[in-house]
Order: sequence, then C-alpha cells, then structure tokens
Amino acid sequence: MKKPKILISNDDGIFSPGIRALWDAMSEIGDLFVVAPDTERSAVGHAITLTDPLRVVPVHRSGGFEGLAVSGTPSDCAKIAIKSILKEKPDLMISGINLGSNVGTNIIYSGTISAATEGTMLGIPSIAISLDTYMSDDFRGAIKVAKDMANHVLHHGVPRGTLLNVNVPYCPPDEIRGVKITRQGNQYFKDEFEERIDPRGRTYYWMKGNVVDKDESLEFDGKAIRENFVSVTPINFKVTNEAYMDELKGQFPNV
Amino acid sequence: MKKPKILISNDDGIFSPGIRALWDAMSEIGDLFVVAPDTERSAVGHAITLTDPLRVVPVHRSGGFEGLAVSGTPSDCAKIAIKSILKEKPDLMISGINLGSNVGTNIIYSGTISAATEGTMLGIPSIAISLDTYMSDDFRGAIKVAKDMANHVLHHGVPRGTLLNVNVPYCPPDEIRGVKITRQGNQYFKDEFEERIDPRGRTYYWMKGNVVDKDESLEFDGKAIRENFVSVTPINFKVTNEAYMDELKGQFPNV
Repeated sequence: MKKPKILISNDDGIFSPGIRALWDAMSEIGDLFVVAPDTERSAVGHAITLTDPLRVVPVHRSGGFEGLAVSGTPSDCAKIAIKSILKEKPDLMISGINLGSNVGTNIIYSGTISAATEGTMLGIPSIAISLDTYMSDDFRGAIKVAKDMANHVLHHGVPRGTLLNVNVPYCPPDEIRGVKITRQGNQYFKDEFEERIDPRGRTYYWMKGNVVDKDESLEFDGKAIRENFVSVTPINFKVTNEAYMDELKGQFPNV
Repeated sequence: MKKPKILISNDDGIFSPGIRALWDAMSEIGDLFVVAPDTERSAVGHAITLTDPLRVVPVHRSGGFEGLAVSGTPSDCAKIAIKSILKEKPDLMISGINLGSNVGTNIIYSGTISAATEGTMLGIPSIAISLDTYMSDDFRGAIKVAKDMANHVLHHGVPRGTLLNVNVPYCPPDEIRGVKITRQGNQYFKDEFEERIDPRGRTYYWMKGNVVDKDESLEFDGKAIRENFVSVTPINFKVTNEAYMDELKGQFPNV
C-alpha cells in the first residue's frame, strides 16, 4: 500500500523538541516533508510575509530528520510548501507539537493553528496539536495522540475548510482519560503591561498576563484538558455573525 | 453633551495617509486617542509581541494630530492602549483607513481587522474600515463612510464579541450606491512564489498572487464593493464548526 504523504510544520521552529517528537511519531505512518520556520514564531497569528523575500534552507537533525527551514511564519511555511516546494499535494498536514495549549480565545494568536489553517485553506486535511505544558520535553502522551489523530484523519477525512485542533493534557500517558470532542471555550489571558526603565533611562513595556478560565463543562477545550482528556475541536474560519445579520439589516432600512 | 472617546489604530502605521484621514473624520465626532504601529505592519494577522519589549513614543503630525507610536503589531496597540495607557475605556475603537480592501478569506491576514478584533475582545465596540485601492490617497468617500459608521455604532452599539468590517468602494463619493450588509465572501489570493537569485548566488522567493473572486451575489463583501456599495460585515471569531460536532462525536463512539 502506498504510504501517505504528510507535511509537518510548527511555530516553535524547526529546531524545537516538539517538531522532533512529531517527526518521530509520523515517521511510522507516512512519507514526511518538514517545512517549518527557521526560528520560533509563536503568537504570530496568521501573519504572512509580503514585504521581505523568503529563504528556504535544508536542515539535517540526528536520526534521519530532514527538513526545510523557512525565514517566515507558519502560514508562509504552509503556503510555500504546498504551492511551490512539494510536487504533489500532501494527504495530511500536521502542525506541532506545540509547547503550551491552544484553547479558548487565544487560538486566534496561535502560529501552530495558523499553519494548519493555511493547509486547510489550500485543501489539505490538517491537524494542529499542542501539549499543555511549557516546561517539559516529555512528549510520550502527545506522540501517541498524534499518531492516533493522524490515522483517524487519514481514514475519516475532515470537511473541507475545517481543521482539527488537538490539545493533549500533560500527564503520564496511562492517565489520559480519552478523547472529548469539544467547542472553543472562553479561556483568555488577562493582559497586563509591566513598565520598566532601560539602562539609558527610557521606558519600555513587557506584555504579561494570567490565564483565566471559568469554563466548568467538559464540552469546552480548556476544561477537557484540565481533566486529563484529549480535546479535539473542529475549527473553521467562517467568521460572519449570521445571527446578527437581520438585526443589522434592520438598522439600514433604506438599502 | 459629553463627547465620546474614540481610540484609533491601524496596520499601515501612524505615519500613513489612511490614519490621518481617519483622524480628520473622527475629530468632528469625539475626543481622539491614536495608538498605532510605528511602521507598516500589514498582513501580520493577529500577531502579538511576547518575546520583545514594546516601546511607546509620542508622535506629532501637522494640523493637531497627536498620537502614540508602538513598536508592535495592531493587536499590541489595542491591548496596550486599552489595558495600560487609557485611563477610561473608550466608547469606540476604529481601525484604518486601510489602503486595500479586507474581504473574503483574506481577512484572516488583516492587521486592520486584528486591531478591531482585539478591541472587541476587550469589550470595546469596534470598526475596521478599508478603502478598495492601493494606489490613491483620495479618502473623501471613506471619510464620509467612517463618520456615518462611527455615529451608527455609537448610537446602536454592536453585540459583544462582534465587530463591523467596513469596506468602501473606490469611486467618487457621489457614485457610492449605499450600504449593503454582507457576509464574508469567498475571495482569495491564488498564491505563487517567484524564485530569484540574489547577487551572492543564493535563491530567494517572493510571495505573489492574483485575487480570485467568483462571488456573484451582493450578499458577499467583495462583490458589493465591486458594485460600488459600501460593504458592512458583522464579524465574530467563534470558530467551532458546530454543524460537524455530532458527526465527529460519532467517530469516537467510546468516549
């Protein structure tokens, strides 16, 4: 049987431990193509690079990991891979494994999700996968989930325009309680800006903040991973507020 | 009567002609606070700046224009303005006037919209406004529309979590045919990458592409502005594919 072609990207950069773990996981399933940012591009949202040229250079890591490093964002990587570098469309795109969950309102900032979104927009079934810790390189649970989800999508497909946002709880693999199909929840960062003075006497600001998550139902992504479930949210970017259309039309009666 | 407080931002930068035109328009309506990127930050999507500090410096332009330039993205500007700089919440946030429309699938890349999205997420009624040309600084039509829409939102409000994405056709003001309440359409860029060789013999790539818009109904944003209507689309970022939830749950029967 012909092996599926799998495109791998991320936002933590091609030298991150998470993409290495993802490569290890996917190498058991398909033929792999890694096209990822040359440096960390976290929280870049769906940025693309229009005003600078992109560079693409080969990267070799131990254990046979081969990839292409792009001087751009996760969206750039997906675009240039699918539209220019690969000769055939991949059967699957998977982005990650991100350190830190991508749930709630914060998914709008996620480079991990933006790579998968771009893949989706270009017609490739796509997955974003994140691990709910910033502190560890123990990807054992996430590797198992990545394999399961990749096989799932290769078998079942996803609707055109929809990606799967997968978040893995940070716990020993045998304590993962199963999969919950979830909705994007309400978790958010309560932003603050810390003012400091640099050695030249000038003011600068660091963005900081705390996570706030009041969701108490397992139907929401953040709550599901806190309870040691894998959270799988189907995401599309149809952003029109359809429910409000009629009221708004009523406010412009002469049109 | 107390004047409304209006926060102005954009993605073309604080020295662009579009934010100047917006300032002129809004100065007839309210007390203005300009917090905008120090340089052009187009196509940055919903990027935020976590790994670098932000600088904030005063900018003075002719005719009384006063503002703060931020060394960050449009989202950063909205966050730092609302959470740190302004003493009170503004009554309205308006982002623009962007050179180039923001319609169809491409709104996901838009810095103009990301500033308004951030305002919306922080509880401020917000508008993004764009003019359908890259080539002109004739903002007469867009200035009139900006005033009308600002007054409209100050009077009617918008639902929490929803912003208005306003696109203005590029035509003489008296040829604008009215307002259409629209849906996000299907317009997209068909991306290509042009390969070049630099003077040192190394390969680089420019992203380029053509707009494709097959929408033929005035219910869609891109078609409306091509027909000289102002397009107003209510946008929210609830991205769960609700219609697909049950089918996906059926694929994980043991959960």
